[in-house]
Amino acid sequence: MNQQYPSALLEKAVGEFAKLPGIGKKTAMRLVLHLLRQEQSTVEAFGNAIMTLKKEVKYCKVCHNISDTEVCQICSNPQRDASVICVVENIRDVMAVEGTQQFRGLYHVLGGVISPMDGVGPSDLQIESLVKRVEEGEVSEVILALSSTMEGDTTNFYIFRKLAKSNVKLSVIARGISIGDELEYTDEVTLGRSIANRTIFTGTV
Amino acid sequence: MNQQYPSALLEKAVGEFAKLPGIGKKTAMRLVLHLLRQEQSTVEAFGNAIMTLKKEVKYCKVCHNISDTEVCQICSNPQRDASVICVVENIRDVMAVEGTQQFRGLYHVLGGVISPMDGVGPSDLQIESLVKRVEEGEVSEVILALSSTMEGDTTNFYIFRKLAKSNVKLSVIARGISIGDELEYTDEVTLGRSIANRTIFTGTV
Repeated sequence: MNQQYPSALLEKAVGEFAKLPGIGKKTAMRLVLHLLRQEQSTVEAFGNAIMTLKKEVKYCKVCHNISDTEVCQICSNPQRDASVICVVENIRDVMAVEGTQQFRGLYHVLGGVISPMDGVGPSDLQIESLVKRVEEGEVSEVILALSSTMEGDTTNFYIFRKLAKSNVKLSVIARGISIGDELEYTDEVTLGRSIANRTIFTGTV
Repeated sequence: MNQQYPSALLEKAVGEFAKLPGIGKKTAMRLVLHLLRQEQSTVEAFGNAIMTLKKEVKYCKVCHNISDTEVCQICSNPQRDASVICVVENIRDVMAVEGTQQFRGLYHVLGGVISPMDGVGPSDLQIESLVKRVEEGEVSEVILALSSTMEGDTTNFYIFRKLAKSNVKLSVIARGISIGDELEYTDEVTLGRSIANRTIFTGTV
């Protein structure tokens, strides 16, 4: 160990960086040496930003999105349509849907999808609180916007069964060929779904 | 800004990560969300390892390699040959040469190479202290092991002139085709050097 790293402190810092996903020892070394070349204050700003985030971050008690306040900015915005809830896997998906500027309702962040392989069951996700939101509130539609994977589909079906008693409209985002994709390179399942779920042509795509 | 990030703390942490070389906003977000999923203690270990390194790291006063002590483990090792100094650009190069287990002398870390484009002049590097080491000591050979670039060559030449008065032997690591490389894909300059600097064949490569 000491033969390789000239300093135990350096080795520790590299080790911590290398624990991050997608970062190997070489990249970790490059990042640590980059930080070493910066001012003391820059390095402290870096370390503090991460520790402060972990210490002080809150999750919206309504939708479980990350937030600086008890109820997040989206949930507390009176201009948003509280009758539609879009169910997503994580915070990044909220940001992705927000980025489209096509959705003016509220969100519900599950915190993952059901995945027995990874030991994630329904009780690890915010599904009960979704059912409660639907039962209590003025919700007319729940849009399922999970990944199009085995795990996503399983979770969709689980939520479908959980909400079967309530008379909320349950929809799922459209599957089909991506804008810009060529037909011949699209897989058969997607293309089949695209044809089955065709919509009336209105002159614009 | 707030439209994109649901939390100012999150945005700050992502911003700090995105300042690192080769890390964009998307990767930064992925890394920060990974850290958020970890235990409080794990995140603190990460932050502290980096801040402690920056605060407490020392540089060996002989060779300027990174070190936990005043004089690094290599310089203070009596088994190393103090009559040979290998001049390298940075800490990673020390580790690379050490990794070969072919060198038992001491090092001298310049801290970079002369690069007018990046505003790095000879006075920004540990060249004066190298000259002093050579003049004062029992040094018989200085090996230049810098990158084979314009900047590396410039720095080699600068050191050559600086050491011209002393009667130390000055050598440079061999340039040639890499082990495992095919001749037809080797560039002409490298191949030319390989031929000019050919060595007596002794039966082993």
